[in-house]
Order: sequence, then C-alpha cells, then structure tokens
Amino acid sequence: MAHHLAIVGASGYGGAELLRLADAHPTIEVAVVAAHSQADSPVAELFPNIAGERRFDAVDVEQLTACDVVVLGTPHGPALQLGAELVDAGTKVVDLSAAFRLSVDGFTTWYGETHPRPDLAAGDDRAAEHVAYGLPELTDQDGMRLRERIRGATLVANPGCYPTAALLGLAPLADLVEPGTVVIDGKSGTSGAGRAASDRLHFAHVHADVTAYAAPTHRHTGEIERWLPTPVGAVSFTPHLVPMARGLLTTSSAVLADGVDADQVADALHDAYGNEPFVHLLAPGTFPHTKALAGANGCQLSAVVDPRTRRVLVTAAIDNLGKGAAGQALQNVNLLLGEDETLGLTAIGTYP
Amino acid sequence: MAHHLAIVGASGYGGAELLRLADAHPTIEVAVVAAHSQADSPVAELFPNIAGERRFDAVDVEQLTACDVVVLGTPHGPALQLGAELVDAGTKVVDLSAAFRLSVDGFTTWYGETHPRPDLAAGDDRAAEHVAYGLPELTDQDGMRLRERIRGATLVANPGCYPTAALLGLAPLADLVEPGTVVIDGKSGTSGAGRAASDRLHFAHVHADVTAYAAPTHRHTGEIERWLPTPVGAVSFTPHLVPMARGLLTTSSAVLADGVDADQVADALHDAYGNEPFVHLLAPGTFPHTKALAGANGCQLSAVVDPRTRRVLVTAAIDNLGKGAAGQALQNVNLLLGEDETLGLTAIGTYP
Amino acid sequence: MAHHLAIVGASGYGGAELLRLADAHPTIEVAVVAAHSQADSPVAELFPNIAGERRFDAVDVEQLTACDVVVLGTPHGPALQLGAELVDAGTKVVDLSAAFRLSVDGFTTWYGETHPRPDLAAGDDRAAEHVAYGLPELTDQDGMRLRERIRGATLVANPGCYPTAALLGLAPLADLVEPGTVVIDGKSGTSGAGRAASDRLHFAHVHADVTAYAAPTHRHTGEIERWLPTPVGAVSFTPHLVPMARGLLTTSSAVLADGVDADQVADALHDAYGNEPFVHLLAPGTFPHTKALAGANGCQLSAVVDPRTRRVLVTAAIDNLGKGAAGQALQNVNLLLGEDETLGLTAIGTYP
Amino acid sequence: MAHHLAIVGASGYGGAELLRLADAHPTIEVAVVAAHSQADSPVAELFPNIAGERRFDAVDVEQLTACDVVVLGTPHGPALQLGAELVDAGTKVVDLSAAFRLSVDGFTTWYGETHPRPDLAAGDDRAAEHVAYGLPELTDQDGMRLRERIRGATLVANPGCYPTAALLGLAPLADLVEPGTVVIDGKSGTSGAGRAASDRLHFAHVHADVTAYAAPTHRHTGEIERWLPTPVGAVSFTPHLVPMARGLLTTSSAVLADGVDADQVADALHDAYGNEPFVHLLAPGTFPHTKALAGANGCQLSAVVDPRTRRVLVTAAIDNLGKGAAGQALQNVNLLLGEDETLGLTAIGTYP
Repeated sequence: MAHHLAIVGASGYGGAELLRLADAHPTIEVAVVAAHSQADSPVAELFPNIAGERRFDAVDVEQLTACDVVVLGTPHGPALQLGAELVDAGTKVVDLSAAFRLSVDGFTTWYGETHPRPDLAAGDDRAAEHVAYGLPELTDQDGMRLRERIRGATLVANPGCYPTAALLGLAPLADLVEPGTVVIDGKSGTSGAGRAASDRLHFAHVHADVTAYAAPTHRHTGEIERWLPTPVGAVSFTPHLVPMARGLLTTSSAVLADGVDADQVADALHDAYGNEPFVHLLAPGTFPHTKALAGANGCQLSAVVDPRTRRVLVTAAIDNLGKGAAGQALQNVNLLLGEDETLGLTAIGTYP
Repeated sequence: MAHHLAIVGASGYGGAELLRLADAHPTIEVAVVAAHSQADSPVAELFPNIAGERRFDAVDVEQLTACDVVVLGTPHGPALQLGAELVDAGTKVVDLSAAFRLSVDGFTTWYGETHPRPDLAAGDDRAAEHVAYGLPELTDQDGMRLRERIRGATLVANPGCYPTAALLGLAPLADLVEPGTVVIDGKSGTSGAGRAASDRLHFAHVHADVTAYAAPTHRHTGEIERWLPTPVGAVSFTPHLVPMARGLLTTSSAVLADGVDADQVADALHDAYGNEPFVHLLAPGTFPHTKALAGANGCQLSAVVDPRTRRVLVTAAIDNLGKGAAGQALQNVNLLLGEDETLGLTAIGTYP
Repeated sequence: MAHHLAIVGASGYGGAELLRLADAHPTIEVAVVAAHSQADSPVAELFPNIAGERRFDAVDVEQLTACDVVVLGTPHGPALQLGAELVDAGTKVVDLSAAFRLSVDGFTTWYGETHPRPDLAAGDDRAAEHVAYGLPELTDQDGMRLRERIRGATLVANPGCYPTAALLGLAPLADLVEPGTVVIDGKSGTSGAGRAASDRLHFAHVHADVTAYAAPTHRHTGEIERWLPTPVGAVSFTPHLVPMARGLLTTSSAVLADGVDADQVADALHDAYGNEPFVHLLAPGTFPHTKALAGANGCQLSAVVDPRTRRVLVTAAIDNLGKGAAGQALQNVNLLLGEDETLGLTAIGTYP
Repeated sequence: MAHHLAIVGASGYGGAELLRLADAHPTIEVAVVAAHSQADSPVAELFPNIAGERRFDAVDVEQLTACDVVVLGTPHGPALQLGAELVDAGTKVVDLSAAFRLSVDGFTTWYGETHPRPDLAAGDDRAAEHVAYGLPELTDQDGMRLRERIRGATLVANPGCYPTAALLGLAPLADLVEPGTVVIDGKSGTSGAGRAASDRLHFAHVHADVTAYAAPTHRHTGEIERWLPTPVGAVSFTPHLVPMARGLLTTSSAVLADGVDADQVADALHDAYGNEPFVHLLAPGTFPHTKALAGANGCQLSAVVDPRTRRVLVTAAIDNLGKGAAGQALQNVNLLLGEDETLGLTAIGTYP
C-alpha cells in the first residue's frame, strides 16, 4: 500500500520538483498538492512539464494530518507555524525552509526574528530528540551519521542549497583545517532565488551576467557554521548568481592545520563518502560539473591541496533543486517512512 | 530475467542518452556499450553524469548477436553495413541513423549514395515485412499505427529529430491541407548537431545567436515528405540552431483545403493523440515549450487556424535526444521486446 | 553646436539603448532623459552600464519642445497623446511605439482602438506630408526611398522590430512573389518583450526554452502587410521567444511568380541594398547570425531559391534594440537633423 | 595623419576585438591584420560581425616594422621570438600573451620554460627601462602609476584577463591586508579560453554548467603575485568557466591587518580610482555585473568589509576581451602614441 505524501507550497520550484520526483516514486502517492495562493488553478499552468488535469489544493490541516508525511515548501514564516502545528499533532514533517535549521540564537542573528519553539529548532541544544537536520550523509560531533537521527524523527529541517554543497565538501575536513580560515564562494542558477518574477531575475538581465549578492551577510552562512561537525570559526561566504536555471557549485578552501597532508584529506573524504550512494568523489585535479547533476539527487566533489598556500580546495556540485532541495527532501521522506534511502532517487543527471 | 541490450556508437549523444535511460529501465540490462574510437576509455570521461567505472567496449559482432536488441548510434555509413549484418543474423536492431529510413531513390536524392539493400530501406516499396519506420504513433496509408508493424520487426529505422516533431504535428492533418503549401520552420538545440567539436558549435559562437542552416536542402526534408501518410507535395523546411543544449521545436503551417475548418483540425488531432501516452495536445492558443520536455520522451503540440490566411499552424516540441532520438529508440525497443511501450519512459521533463 | 535631443520613456530598453548611442554621437547632446514612473531615480540603478550620477527627468512638455528632436519610447497610449501635442507645437518627433505606424483602419483592426488623428497615422492615405514611416531603406510604391520623406518630416513612426527585419528581407521581392503565399517565422531575444518583470520572462523559464507566442494575431502582422511596397495579401506570421537577450531573426518565404528565377531575386536584392550602409547582403547559402549584429545598427540578410518548392527563402538578422529600435531611431534623428545618416552609428557588432 | 597599427594573430578573439576597436579609432589606421594560419582567407568567414572584403595578411616582419605600433595576439611562444625581433628593430610592441609579463624565474615556475631575454621580461629586475607591464592604473612600489612608464616604453606586456580584474581590485589594498590570506575566485566566459574548438568548449557542454579548472596551478596566479605592489605572499586562485561568451568577475578577499577598518579600505580605493576614467567604484553592498561592461574597456568594482571574519571582499568585473585584453591593449597603444588614453575607448557596455 502506498504512503500518502502531502506537499504544501507546491507552486514554488522546490515543491514542484518534489511533485515531479514523488509522482515517479514506486511506493508514494501524492495525496495533496497544496498552494495557498494558487488553490484550484491547474498545476500545468505554472509547470508545463506536468501534464494532466491536476489542480493545486487549498491548505487544509486535517487533510495534511491524514497523510504519512507532509513536506513544506513555503517561506519560513508560514512554515514555523504550520510545521509546529503538524508536528504537535504527531504528523511527520520535512520542511524545506530555514524555519527549523538553526539554533534559537542563530535564528535571531541571521533571520532577525525570535524563534517561537526552541524544542523544534534543530540546531539548538534544546531541540527535542525527534527533530533532525536533514543532511543524511553528515556526521555529528559523535561521528554518527545524521540519517540515524532522521529515521526516528518527526520533524526534519531540510538543509539550504548552499549549505548542502558546502557542508558535504567541508564537513569531513573540519578537523583538519585551521579555524578562521574557511572561505566559500558559491555559484547558483536562478531557480535558487525562487519563482517570483523580479527585475533582478529577468532573463535579459541574468543572461550573460555573473554577479555576487548578499555578501557578507547571506543567511546560509550561519547554517554552514552551525552544522560543520567541528567548529571552524566564522566562515566567509560569497554567493553568486550565474546564468543557468539549475545547478550550484561551492568552491571552498581553508588552510590545513600543521602537519596535515594531502593523503589525510583524501582519506577523510574517502571515509566519509566511500559508501554513500549520492556523493561521488572525483579524483584530485578533476572538477565537478553542475551540468552532470541536472535533475539528479547527486553531489560531485573533489579536493586538491595547494602546497604553496597550504590551502585545501574543495569544489562540490549539486542540482540546487535536487540534492539542494527536493531530492534531499525525498531522501529524508524515504528515511522517515522506513524505505530504502535511494528509492525513487536513482535517476542520474541529463547531460548534455 | 532481464533483456540484454547493446548500444553501438555509445560515445555519441544519442547513444549516451539511451544508456542513461536503459540503465534505469526495470527489465533491461545494458550488456554492451560499444564505441569504436573510444574503446576501453572510461564512459565518465565523456559523460560526467555517468558515474562509475564502466568503459566503452569495442565493437564485436558476436557479442552483439548474443544480445536481445542492438541499438546503433553510429553515422549512417557504418550503420548500413553493421545493421544489415546483424539483421541478416536474425538480431533485432534499432538504428538511430538515416541508413534505413528512406526509399532507395530517396536515399540517392538526399544522401547522394546508392542504398545497398532495398529490402532494408523502410521507406521503399521493396522493404521486407520485418522492416519498420520507428514512429509508433504515426498511421500508415491504411490507417494502421506503425507500432503494429514495429512489434513484429527485426529492423527499426528510428526517425530523425526534426521529422519526429514535424510528422507528429502534420501527419493527422495531411488529408486536410492543400498540397504544395506546407512550410516547416525548425529550431534545435546544439546537441542535435552531435558531439564532435567544431568552430560552428563553439560555445562563444552559439551563445546569443540564432541562425538558419542547410536550407533548403536539409536531408530531413525528404524523410518528412516520405512519411506523411498522404502525400502533400514538396515541403519547404528551414532548420535553425538556437542557443540551448537540448530541445527542438517545429513550427509548421499549410493552407487548409476548401471547406476544412478549425473543428476538423481539432478532431483530427484529438483522434490521433487522445489516447497516446507520449503526445500531449495543448489547447489552441497555448504553445508548446521545449523546456517542458527536457529529458523526457514526450511531445507537446498544439494547432491554431488563421482565418485570414486559411493556414493551420502546428507547433510541436520535443527533446531532440528524447522523443527525437534515444527515448523513441527505447520505446521501439519496448515494442520489439513485447514490453509495455511506456516502460522506463514515464519520466517527465525537468522544469525549470 | 550640438543638437538637443530628448528621450521620453528612457527607462525602457529602447529608450536606454538610444541614450547609450546618443551619448556617443558627436553632434548630439542628450538634454532630457525622461521616465514618468522613475523620475528622479538614478539611471544607473536600472542600467548598470550607464555610470555616473544622471537621474531620470520628469516629463515636462515645455522642456521637450525646447529640444531639436524628441524620441518617444513610451507605450502607444501615451505616445498617441504626447506625440500629437509635440508635433502640433512644431517639434520633431520620432516615436518608437505603434501609435503612428498604421492606417486608421489598421489601428482599429490590430490594436482595437480608434485612432484619434488620421493626419498623423503614417500608414493612412490621409496622413500629412510631414509624417513618415521610419524605415529609410524601404521604397514606396513609386520607387522612392522612405528616407527622402523622413528628411522633411516632423513625425517619424519608427518601425517595429519584426517588421524591420521582415520588410528589409521581403520588400525588394514583393513584385516577384505570388500573393497569398508569404510565411514569416520570427525569433526574438527577450529584450523585445520589454523590461517589465513577468513570469513569462523569468530567467529560469526562458533559459533552454523556445516557444511560439501570439500567433496568428501578433500585431506586427498588420504593419508588415501595410508596408510591403506591393500588396502580397495576408501574410502568416509566427513569432518565437528564444533564449538570448538581444537579437532577432526573420525567416520568410514565398512562392515565386511564374517565370521568376534566382537571378532576378539576387538582382532585386542587390539593387535594393548594394549601396545601403546598414544592410549587408550575404551570399546565397550563407546565413545571417544575430550575434554578428549585437549592439549595431546593421541588418544581415541572404536569400536562396528552392527549385523544388519554388519558394524564395529570405533570412534577415538584426539587433532588435539596434536596427530594430534605437539604432533605427537615431538613423531617423540624423535624417531629421540633416546630418549624415550614419553619424554615431558605425559601430559594428561585438562578436563573440 | 593616421597612425599605422599592425595586428598579428588577428584570427584570435583578442586580435579580432582589437580590430573592431581600432577600426573605430579616430586617429588609427589598421594597416596589417596578420594571421599566420589564415593568411589570405576572408576575415568575415571567422568574424561575421566584420563585413567587407578584408582578408588576413601573412606575417611579414618588414611590413610590421613599417608600422607605428604592432600588437601581438599570438600564443606566448611565437610572441617571445617576434616580439624580441620587433623591439630590437625599434618597433613599438604591445603583446597580449604572457611572454613578457613575469620575471625570468616566474616564467620558469609558471610556464616551465627558460625565458630567453631577461631584459624584456617586464617582471624581472633586469628588465630594460623601455619595457612595461601594461596595466596603466596600477601603481608600482614607489606609488607611480604604470602609465608613466608605458608612455615611454617600446615593449608593453599587456596583462592577463584574470590579473587585470584581480589586481585592479586588490592592488590598492595590498598594504592593508595580512600576507598569506588572499583568496581569489575567478569566473570567466568562454571567449577567455580562445577560439580553438574543443570538447570542453562545445556549446552543449558549457551551457548550464559551471566548473572550476586548472586550480591551484593556473598560470595567472604568478602574474597576480608578481604585480601586487606590496607582496602579500602566495595567493590562492581558482578560476571557473561560466556559461557566457564574454565577461569576467574576480571575487577576492583577504584578512585586514590589525587596526585597519572599512573607512581605510574605502579611502584607498577612492584614492586609487577617483580620477580613473575606466574604473568605476560602486558603493559597498552594490555588486559589479559583468554584463554592464560587455564590449567596453571599463572595470566595475566594489569592496565590503565583513566584521565577523575581518575579511575585505572585493569584486571586480570586466569584459575579458575589453579591459581584459583588446581594450586595454588599445589603451596602451594610445599611451605609446602620445594620444589621449581614452581615445576610441569611450563606448560603454551594451546592456541588456
């Protein structure tokens, strides 16, 4: 019998990508496709890839609590409220927003708001046992993969797109680098900025353009700092918009601690990802391509050590809507449902 | 037990896309991934989306005849020879090239070569019963869908990318238009031009450029004329290169015959595609988007009648590597193997 | 002494491109840069290529009538009113909108509005002698170049982007083709759709997409029909949006009249453009590239005859903001001011 | 009377862009357009923006020494030889390659070759007085702008594209940062990789892709280190290919030295560029757009200080073929000829 999945905020790119993936999942039935502002309008009007007569549902909490898992694709404001309500009712929730990723203090610092529920803030010491940060491949300070915690969770805070790539690249090396030296340069396609039309996202302005934005105070900075398993101090993070619809690359570097060499770097990455189905380690000197992951839940990464600067350079590529959002959400849904983690997620990137 | 599939010419875009699709097919095992010029080199070197250690095989006819189906992704020259050899040995073949699509005369006219095997030229009156043109949704002059013939075939000539879109759009209307008035304008992403590097396909030249090419003598013209179920005379076909990697749109029009009206046009299209899983009819006034089909085997099409000019305008969008090549090939493989025609082909387009 | 130029509607792409060009013109000083909705905000905020402290002006009629020429870059509604007011005051005007291009009847048919001033409708029999359609290279029915009329005009209706390319390609051949057989396929970059943000122009939606739109009732159809020097009946016109910011290509064809051959086609084009500085005839079989005209006022065109269909195929490329809007406007300004027609317009395209 | 300019290696992007610019220069006549491998073939075949009958010349040293300045756009190998020969003959030379930019030791380190002429290696202590590094806005250790030295030079080593942007951004701050902390992330359009067709530059591979390359040993690293006016130790430089034809952005950061604050950073940049016509300082928090400089010789840059990490972040955008190559070369030609430095270089970027 199929598991029932509800998607709330399905008119956004993350929600719609999850709909695409979940519709093809062998044991999941998408029971609710809710979008507050679009209720009753045809899905195909906004997403011409999704044929058929399906219309967006209204947001109806009773309908949601009747589902096995609810994925929230709304902004963090509505997610804070609806997520808490669903979790309090015992419904399993995966939230794509930043509502539950940080500590209460971190939320104040980076989002300028008071977090109403310390017990549901995955990054807070007061977080309940059933709350998890949804990056399954990450290890916590005790060396346990987060997937163990996600399996038993009620609420999963799905990571941000930049943090997913940056953390996958840097986490295994956090013990090996000098605190205070981490520099991250991010490049993202425009779908990461959402579906709302704006001057800044107009085709004529993005085409043939590269620009930095929001530095040095982009909110994902705090999320990256929080979830590196060993604290490495303040990190410098500069995101960029590049002229493509999907895809995200992080170029991260840090000074190696005294005595650490390239072999230790290679070993740490191999230990972390040798058995991970979604993380593909490339040989040093080979660099990830965002295009290779289009539509997939994978992450390509490689590291190289520069003996001149003693910096280790890690580049990591994902599809920001795949492993950076909806793919990862479905991976978390699989864990919550007790399914094989890779079910419905084995599609590789379309290339070229 | 899995069916064994061989792909020859797997270093081309069509072959590699088929590998991507077939690897995800539930009852097919890809037994051979042959590429003459790349034998023994890693697949991932050319196709970074395809992780793992797989290497290209050499072309070994014995290995091929041991497979259930062989798909040829080579140029038409090698395909003519290898295809004939395999078919003569009783092996089922789907050929992506133009080797077997036309009549012997058509081959001479459009390819400037003598066709060695009239019995294997799908477009020739002398073609053997077990040779089929691989556009399953098309009807022949007797109103039979080509899929019926494909099911029993040994050799399937997979259609060209432009002909697939043009024929799906125009074939149901061929009876309704005035001969000699068909004009087709095609727009294709660059993957249609193949993987070989060239000045013309250099990113810096294609980016921000649109240009026509090869008109009025593009070879697909003859294929379109041959396979319209009712002859409509010489068609005017102008292909264009547009700055995208995948995707193909044909914009076709013709003068309606006396007395034919918009309702008859709508009925003809509805009769043709109302039950077809891969052809999505859009409402008149709504236009297909190539982006909606990226990575999928679908075709979107719509028609509108202009009362001023009495022209019916049909636009049809496909992924040139999907329904325009590898997706369609896998659809034909399913038919040859007696599988459900849609098996392994239900993925929808990645959008945005 | 410099001529004073005013630009109204300078916050649109056409107006801003004219500002870029006019700032570099040796004998023109841009005295007014008006934008109703943006008055007093910095130009560089919308157009980061335009450095410096300049701010948009409010629209002040007295200020405008003090200038030598006013170019209107507003929508046709405001242009109808302000254009008439300025012309009545004796001020020379070039209007980029459709306000004054058609006949009164044509305006009703294609724009659904009653034209208030038959004497200012350049396409109307009742148009005053001092009103001109601003395509200098075009010949009227008497074989006179329109530039002769523009020189003495007070009001110039600057052509639309698609009509510019389509007319330059087809006008010299209008006598040579069978009426009722003209088919035009247009492809434009998104800047042709204006600067207003919209779902349809979102980068993530346009990237990797080609789509038709507005067919068969795009308003430029009527403009093309009106200004072909010999009536050729109703033309079929289908515009497309392609993923680039600038550039426009028209692919036009028509059946040659009995007895007309390729030499007559070549002669007609050579006669028309052999001495034109902005129209570059390419050899048959060589095709125009939109990219070759980026930022320039030129038009590349070539024609080829298909003996099978007896259609002549003409492709014409322009920069939709150059020869398709602001470049052409400056060419008209030069004519109005008695300057050399090419002054300030000799820059060639940036390529690649 | 016009100055005579020769361009050698004009079939490359840098050479052809210089031809575009120089043809529009009021006091320069392009007397020679040489391209060894393309001699006698039409320029318009490779560069469709350049209309007319001009053909590439053969390389003829006598012809070159008869010119007032020769710009070399060849690879560094031929440039080493031909540059030396011309300079020895007293001919003024601007070289676009890396042949003369470094010290002899730097050349060995980064290019793996022995430099034959220490007196012509602009970065060497033994360089002759008449040899200059061609970044006019840069100051040397004594606080003198390099343009002073260029004015009297015979040989000018035109900077690399990445070094131009990185140095313009970092040079004024070199005194204010902690050595050993400089991290530079570069993003370039594909024209920076040259006109030769390759698998890597195929449109279908670059489209929708971002990837790092050549790190941490890209040759421009040594050039940046050499020309920062105050040594800052080894810098970490990671270049990336982004899907656009033109445009380059460097994102550079370094830890501020103790006691240095944001005001000092702002002052240093204002002192450096307040009067520079080609460097446009943007307000902190506003970020440069590569698109704003397309076709222009300008550089946009801005800096912001991150109080959390104490890093100053400088982003700088150029057109890699403009200020990053041909524009800068023409600026140097102007200096060599005693012309106003901005002559023929005042065009701003085409936007959008």
